[in-house]
Amino acid sequence: AAMNTATDSVTNSVNTFFLIFAAILVFFMQTGFAMICAGSVRVNNVQNTLLKNLLDACGASLGFYTVGYAFAFGGSFSNPSQTTFIGNTNFFLMDVENQAFWLFQFAFAATSATIVAGTLAERCQMSAYLCYSVALSAFVYPVVVHSIWSNNGFLSANNSNPLLGIGMVDFAGSCVVHVTGGMTALIATNILGPRTGRFRDIRGNLLEKPRPMPGHSVALQMLGTFILWVGWYGFNSGSVVYLMQNDNYEVVSHVAINTTLAAAAGTVMALFIDTAIQEHNTGEVTFNLSYAMNGCLAGLVSITAGCAVVQSWAALIIGAIGGALFLGCSKLLVKRRIDDAVDAVPVHLSSGIWGSLSVGLLADPTWLSKVYGNSNHAGWFYSWSRGSADAHLLACQVIGVLFVLGWVTVTMTPFFWLLHYFGFLRADSLEEVVGLDVGYTGGALHNRLHAKDDDQNYS
Amino acid sequence: AAMNTATDSVTNSVNTFFLIFAAILVFFMQTGFAMICAGSVRVNNVQNTLLKNLLDACGASLGFYTVGYAFAFGGSFSNPSQTTFIGNTNFFLMDVENQAFWLFQFAFAATSATIVAGTLAERCQMSAYLCYSVALSAFVYPVVVHSIWSNNGFLSANNSNPLLGIGMVDFAGSCVVHVTGGMTALIATNILGPRTGRFRDIRGNLLEKPRPMPGHSVALQMLGTFILWVGWYGFNSGSVVYLMQNDNYEVVSHVAINTTLAAAAGTVMALFIDTAIQEHNTGEVTFNLSYAMNGCLAGLVSITAGCAVVQSWAALIIGAIGGALFLGCSKLLVKRRIDDAVDAVPVHLSSGIWGSLSVGLLADPTWLSKVYGNSNHAGWFYSWSRGSADAHLLACQVIGVLFVLGWVTVTMTPFFWLLHYFGFLRADSLEEVVGLDVGYTGGALHNRLHAKDDDQNYS
Amino acid sequence: AAMNTATDSVTNSVNTFFLIFAAILVFFMQTGFAMICAGSVRVNNVQNTLLKNLLDACGASLGFYTVGYAFAFGGSFSNPSQTTFIGNTNFFLMDVENQAFWLFQFAFAATSATIVAGTLAERCQMSAYLCYSVALSAFVYPVVVHSIWSNNGFLSANNSNPLLGIGMVDFAGSCVVHVTGGMTALIATNILGPRTGRFRDIRGNLLEKPRPMPGHSVALQMLGTFILWVGWYGFNSGSVVYLMQNDNYEVVSHVAINTTLAAAAGTVMALFIDTAIQEHNTGEVTFNLSYAMNGCLAGLVSITAGCAVVQSWAALIIGAIGGALFLGCSKLLVKRRIDDAVDAVPVHLSSGIWGSLSVGLLADPTWLSKVYGNSNHAGWFYSWSRGSADAHLLACQVIGVLFVLGWVTVTMTPFFWLLHYFGFLRADSLEEVVGLDVGYTGGALHNRLHAKDDDQNYS
Repeated sequence: AAMNTATDSVTNSVNTFFLIFAAILVFFMQTGFAMICAGSVRVNNVQNTLLKNLLDACGASLGFYTVGYAFAFGGSFSNPSQTTFIGNTNFFLMDVENQAFWLFQFAFAATSATIVAGTLAERCQMSAYLCYSVALSAFVYPVVVHSIWSNNGFLSANNSNPLLGIGMVDFAGSCVVHVTGGMTALIATNILGPRTGRFRDIRGNLLEKPRPMPGHSVALQMLGTFILWVGWYGFNSGSVVYLMQNDNYEVVSHVAINTTLAAAAGTVMALFIDTAIQEHNTGEVTFNLSYAMNGCLAGLVSITAGCAVVQSWAALIIGAIGGALFLGCSKLLVKRRIDDAVDAVPVHLSSGIWGSLSVGLLADPTWLSKVYGNSNHAGWFYSWSRGSADAHLLACQVIGVLFVLGWVTVTMTPFFWLLHYFGFLRADSLEEVVGLDVGYTGGALHNRLHAKDDDQNYS
Repeated sequence: AAMNTATDSVTNSVNTFFLIFAAILVFFMQTGFAMICAGSVRVNNVQNTLLKNLLDACGASLGFYTVGYAFAFGGSFSNPSQTTFIGNTNFFLMDVENQAFWLFQFAFAATSATIVAGTLAERCQMSAYLCYSVALSAFVYPVVVHSIWSNNGFLSANNSNPLLGIGMVDFAGSCVVHVTGGMTALIATNILGPRTGRFRDIRGNLLEKPRPMPGHSVALQMLGTFILWVGWYGFNSGSVVYLMQNDNYEVVSHVAINTTLAAAAGTVMALFIDTAIQEHNTGEVTFNLSYAMNGCLAGLVSITAGCAVVQSWAALIIGAIGGALFLGCSKLLVKRRIDDAVDAVPVHLSSGIWGSLSVGLLADPTWLSKVYGNSNHAGWFYSWSRGSADAHLLACQVIGVLFVLGWVTVTMTPFFWLLHYFGFLRADSLEEVVGLDVGYTGGALHNRLHAKDDDQNYS
Repeated sequence: AAMNTATDSVTNSVNTFFLIFAAILVFFMQTGFAMICAGSVRVNNVQNTLLKNLLDACGASLGFYTVGYAFAFGGSFSNPSQTTFIGNTNFFLMDVENQAFWLFQFAFAATSATIVAGTLAERCQMSAYLCYSVALSAFVYPVVVHSIWSNNGFLSANNSNPLLGIGMVDFAGSCVVHVTGGMTALIATNILGPRTGRFRDIRGNLLEKPRPMPGHSVALQMLGTFILWVGWYGFNSGSVVYLMQNDNYEVVSHVAINTTLAAAAGTVMALFIDTAIQEHNTGEVTFNLSYAMNGCLAGLVSITAGCAVVQSWAALIIGAIGGALFLGCSKLLVKRRIDDAVDAVPVHLSSGIWGSLSVGLLADPTWLSKVYGNSNHAGWFYSWSRGSADAHLLACQVIGVLFVLGWVTVTMTPFFWLLHYFGFLRADSLEEVVGLDVGYTGGALHNRLHAKDDDQNYS
């Protein structure tokens, strides 16, 4: 008995330490998103955008504390019971046994909320953003988490009686986090409309080609991208949750390597496909840093669902396709005149969908068995090569993606539409033209590079 | 015996790993402070300010190595003995058993020193800053640490015979680190005086309202704020020191959650109270990012003392009051014409005092017992609700705060006054007007955005 | 048996966690290098430089996955056998047992590759850089790693029959990583030539003194420097690899402290020696932030080889000499008209050589025994003081440094020379004058601070 206690103490300590470590890395991603947003907007919208990023983190913390976690995991994370649509215990952290898990999940909720910040940049009112941020992290996102990750979710692989005998396999949230955030961003930007001057001139006539509105600092964008890559190791590896259980330490390393390879493949694909297209069209060899950075993120989003259950070569393929898909979707959005200031929709939505589906195609039975204790239904390519063409897992992934797309559409469309209808969504058009910082902060600019001149005038 | 050795090895390895992890996070806060300072100053003072931040870290490392740690913990951290004012062994790392603990404490000392950097920005000489930085981290701060955290300190809860039967409860240093740093900043800025042109015009007449001297990059300020928030998880959670002892892993998670909630509450309170005031005064709804960021830090400082011993709802309250207090103090400082370039005094001093006192009001007996092995004297609200109104803990907290305020005043006032008297403190007034970077670095500017023009002139 | 399994599980979990943690910190250094490069170049080269940094990370990941790791450690890391020049198993991660170790080593390879990025900034073609980056991380660097760190390397201290009975002691890679990267940078810049206008005017006449080409943001440089310092804790402490083996936890703390002290000593020495020189020459006291930052990095590079095997006072000395050496070499390079946009050669090459040799002088027998299980041949000063003057270790260090210098020269000189010969190396001279960003990215600038004016023109 004394022995058992000692071992339990070690297990609990190490598991907690690992999860806190991962939670801190995931929370660090808030810094990354903030830097990407700050770098991607024009100089007179920096303060405004950054404030949204900071309030995201705070709103998610308060929303998750009050009801979000309860909706997501209430109804016992550890004791499987019947399937429910939404959790109903653990409000206000009450009776939450694994508090490190709470922190980890809070950091995920904050990530989900912050994905949208960049898309709406430069034209969305602050108060609308606040409403949205709380609604997403306290209600819409937790329902998705409950369905796919809790023991009581109808799609969950942890359900005692999972859908089609396997449930949806979304290890770290390509679908749960990124499709939720990305779809919300798509709905919001559709209702909000593009930035003034992006696709039409001042008289409302369509421009021949969209006017580029480049951000003011690629260094900050790159800083943010690298921080996200770093944080993603916590996001993906941390999703093993219990480091000291079975041989989970092997899973942790495997996940980290897959994450690395997918990021690299996504970067290279997005960059060089664009270079090839440009060379074909113009004859000049150019390299687009923005596509490289977003290709990197697309690779990361793509591998998030499958990082624990696919082989490393598959991670390369998944990341590469994710990078290519991102590039196509980014160009498609511009063609469809949907304005996304940071390309969050192609990065998170399309790669998120692809990542979720990729598991249905490429999940390896050995890893499935190691991670989910069940290799009855592997990826379709594996089943097919074994002659069975068992598509149960693929079907679960498709159902999961459709569920999330549907749920977000059903809840978020009326939400943003009502905000828009009552005039709370879109910033005043004059404010938009001069930059939101001017109106909201009383005329102060971001980069006060001429402050020195002021001093000289003074003296 | 073999069993015990194995277990000891696990315990030592995990404890060391955890403490090194926390120390690295705390050291990362140096980056955060540097970015906040860089963003908060005008463009021709960036180099100068950053150099102070870098030298802080180096000075603290050398000062702590030679004598600082010895003064703080010398006289055995692990074996309680009689009460002393200052430690006298362990100079130059000699005979320090727990070297990970040394690293962790060094990172704290560096934090304490760097708090002051921003306040004095744009007008303080480099050499004065160096003197101060070594004096604080090698002597003034270690004495505070010795008194409140070592086993031999007269205020320490670890003292074998603690003050009033409980001693001061300052888990991660609201008082030890932040009041020490914040009070030093207040004294220094009072002696140094405000930046030229901040409150008076060139003829020395008072301006109707203070001239704003906004920093040159809010993106860097936000970067720094987020990094500090991230680092604070190491600061607070790491203060448990021995992860594998009792059920300390529960404490670690609890601390991390309280830290999160207080940061969120502080942000929201500081931001929206200011918005409400501005709307009341001017009728316009504006959002002040700077107040939001500093409110966040104020929430973090406030919860630092009590993070391990208060309930989560209390963490929210403590953070919220911390945010509100910061806002009031910030406005008060401006009204009193005390110039603080980064609002470090309201963030660290007033929130530090509040955080220290809040423990005396809200410390929960269950958590006190878990963390300090003693719940005889809980927070005053708890005692009061139990009908006893036992204020021993509150008294200890008040005594602790007064001691630190007094000690810092007694040591730092003559120190800065002498520097001032001999002309080592204030930068040359011409240098100040053109920006300290020009004088100290031979004319180079920070943001060389017109470098391209130079190239073109050249060709 | 059950007991053993339990203990193995703990050991594997904690070791993996520690190594993943260290790997993430080392990978975070990519962010640091990117920020230093971005800050050090002129504004119209930021995108170009950052893209190189991102592709470094990706190229290293792909190169290391396919062949790099196999060349470095293939031929069994755990089972010593005969000495080989290059590894030949473990391609494509096949049969790699310790996958966390793979990730850790990948992060090192990425570091080695990225050292060169800054040196070549502002004048090197993108495609040349890509070729180099893959060649270094997939072939040149792995051979060095194989020789010095694998069990099969002829210089390795882990070889079952090490050179001179001890082999080379390069704990975390002063020689393996930094001399390799630094020497490559030196060769490349020699073949590539200086930036146009740096040493000669437009007619090709030598300038009286080199034209300074300061970077556009010291704040980003400082950000990068601090991130590198933080990441270095993973670089050095992580190199213990197995946390739970012998008393390695003591080594981890010792390494972290030595790293801190050397960084501080390097900073202070480089800064104040330069200040003294300037004061002597001009009579004015100035402080050069750039020297302070690079002195810090030089201190870190210097201690990297010996961090585990020297005493703390020796770490101070090694860091201080590293800082001084850096300053001398930096000035020497300018005098020799070798153009290094970020001073990577003095930081990594000269400090790397010094760090490697310092082990031969100052390695402490107690620590050598603890870390390498063998104290037969300690640092020369120790042997000398014991009256034996045993220089076996020093000889190994000298041989190791010469081997790396020779190997890099033999492989990289023809490589860059061929690139140069076929016109793939140097950017078009017009492109260089207007900034590489213009050509490569179609005219977009980095800091679009006048975007607001565009908006106003529009409206």
